[in-house]
Amino acid sequence: MKFSLVAKDKNSNARAGIIETSRGPIQTPIFMPVGTQATVKSVSQADLLERIKAQIILANTYHVYLRPGMEVIQKAGGVHQFMNWHKPMLTDSGGYQVFSLSSIRKITEEGVSFRSHLDGSKLFLSPVDATDIQRTIGADIFMAFDECPPYPCDKQYAEKSMKLTHRWLSKCVNRFNETSPLYGHEQSLFPIVQGSVFKDLRIESAKYVADQGMDGNAIGGLSVGEPAEQMYEMTSLVCDILPKDKPRYLMGVGTPENILEGIALGVDMFDCVMPTRNARHGFIFTSEGIVNIKNEKWKLDFSPLDPVFTPEYSKAYVKHLIKCNEMLGATIASIQNLSFYVWLSQEARKHIIAGDFSTWKKEILEKTMRRL
Amino acid sequence: MKFSLVAKDKNSNARAGIIETSRGPIQTPIFMPVGTQATVKSVSQADLLERIKAQIILANTYHVYLRPGMEVIQKAGGVHQFMNWHKPMLTDSGGYQVFSLSSIRKITEEGVSFRSHLDGSKLFLSPVDATDIQRTIGADIFMAFDECPPYPCDKQYAEKSMKLTHRWLSKCVNRFNETSPLYGHEQSLFPIVQGSVFKDLRIESAKYVADQGMDGNAIGGLSVGEPAEQMYEMTSLVCDILPKDKPRYLMGVGTPENILEGIALGVDMFDCVMPTRNARHGFIFTSEGIVNIKNEKWKLDFSPLDPVFTPEYSKAYVKHLIKCNEMLGATIASIQNLSFYVWLSQEARKHIIAGDFSTWKKEILEKTMRRL
Repeated sequence: MKFSLVAKDKNSNARAGIIETSRGPIQTPIFMPVGTQATVKSVSQADLLERIKAQIILANTYHVYLRPGMEVIQKAGGVHQFMNWHKPMLTDSGGYQVFSLSSIRKITEEGVSFRSHLDGSKLFLSPVDATDIQRTIGADIFMAFDECPPYPCDKQYAEKSMKLTHRWLSKCVNRFNETSPLYGHEQSLFPIVQGSVFKDLRIESAKYVADQGMDGNAIGGLSVGEPAEQMYEMTSLVCDILPKDKPRYLMGVGTPENILEGIALGVDMFDCVMPTRNARHGFIFTSEGIVNIKNEKWKLDFSPLDPVFTPEYSKAYVKHLIKCNEMLGATIASIQNLSFYVWLSQEARKHIIAGDFSTWKKEILEKTMRRL
Repeated sequence: MKFSLVAKDKNSNARAGIIETSRGPIQTPIFMPVGTQATVKSVSQADLLERIKAQIILANTYHVYLRPGMEVIQKAGGVHQFMNWHKPMLTDSGGYQVFSLSSIRKITEEGVSFRSHLDGSKLFLSPVDATDIQRTIGADIFMAFDECPPYPCDKQYAEKSMKLTHRWLSKCVNRFNETSPLYGHEQSLFPIVQGSVFKDLRIESAKYVADQGMDGNAIGGLSVGEPAEQMYEMTSLVCDILPKDKPRYLMGVGTPENILEGIALGVDMFDCVMPTRNARHGFIFTSEGIVNIKNEKWKLDFSPLDPVFTPEYSKAYVKHLIKCNEMLGATIASIQNLSFYVWLSQEARKHIIAGDFSTWKKEILEKTMRRL
């Protein structure tokens, strides 16, 4: 992987760049759609590519590990072949889902014991396992195995957890260095900064992570319930320490506003389930403002859901589909929300390059975050 | 509407034709995908057009009448505008769903009282209402209001029901003749032959229907549980009476084999929920045979679901999606099954024209109806 900076904003820490991977370039800042179980919910790979213009998507290691499982992925020749997606992919380490979905988990120095949320079977993941599994999945970018502490979290726990994450990180890096990428493509490991909302811990963690010298770096443990201001404060602190010549990934963030603020603080990569999850509930981001399609006011509104991204379907029709629980409603709304998110990240990029990012950011948020 | 016969098979009553509507031609024999609530479940209009190559689709009057309701459809400018489908559409009369879905129904000379299956509200449909509603929906072809008796059904009830259907038919035809098409497109009303599985009733009904002189004619009340041989016997009997120069529509039929047998008996149009319903349950028709994708044998099969219709997704991937209840699984399987059905009807057409329909029919059923 190679990362080049293309432009830097004068009034903020926003930057435009290109990540070059062996599966093609990623123009940063970039929003990455989440494909939990090796599918972005309700969206086809053709629509991801042609309509949404996704440059990189995520899959969740925990989910893919459970289903279809490593034998299928390995024999398919990796997750790209399996799902017929040939642009870059990123996998998380599985840690986040182990903590949020599974039960009877036990964290030890060696890793995490847990039970599958599907069938209750006993499983164990170590930093080495998470690294090997992600090698096998074949993501272009994969994540170090970390503990993501909840919010709020007392400082003692946050510190203990961070130190464990650091020791696990060293094990991941060692395993990464002693293994090779599979399926004839490059793979990069990104370490994750933790430290909850404690400045000194975040600084310590950012330095530890920066010292690993990996291809890129991630900020984890944010957008877990803390106030947005605290998320921005931590992100800012960490971005100041993480190397400028490596991409920075703010995990699980967030609203369109969170993303633009994150970009202003120097973040290059984002992912979030918000666009697809909100879409399925009829909460739709458009180029003209936010539409709650379940609202009665759209019943007779035959204007396009969005003249830019989904001009062929009216608000009234999408309202009908979502109300009737018809799958096409989720599909149209998901295409719409993901198109908006990817477009927003690429517009930000254009305006960083053009030199008017800050004024554009204010205007676009005013325009697109109003409730229609 | 204009119907022209293009070719007639020498060894059967199969025929190839063209129905010309003001929204474009329909090459018969044709399979029509079912879009119950103004959407073919899990399939986009673009995929219907470009991948499935649907020439005409159905919507169910009962469902569209309840949701989104007539005000929405009328103000949208008809169902075509509403759902952004600009090729021909057909609506059923609503009768079938009133009998199968709603409760506390009461059939009188005037029509049917029933309660909505959605909210229990009291509703009433008469032959005139059904005609007016379908005018408003704006289907290119719409159906006379009939009673579809269950199977089995004693002869006395079948006869009484048929006579009521005939009286309702006269009311539908009168109402049709005294009203005009909406939205600037032609509309045709097809009457429906009933009579359960009783030869003399079917003959009487077919004659009554033929005498109406409408643009096309339908055969209803079959594929409701009777043996296939009885369905074929009734269809054959009725096709001998219905005019040769009008299209014949066998409602709600059926399996691929039922469709090819129906074509051999002289039927031109078919619809059925089987391809989409089976798709959602992982029962998939392919050009190479039938695949039950839930079977473990596909777990590591990375060959295309179908090399012709869905070459980009493997059996193993679709199995994973269907097993995980991922919407994309239903979408891919529905595209596959509908593509197969439409293709089958169009291949039949080619072979009727080429003069080898009967031998082709035998071969294609042997090839595609085997379990893989």
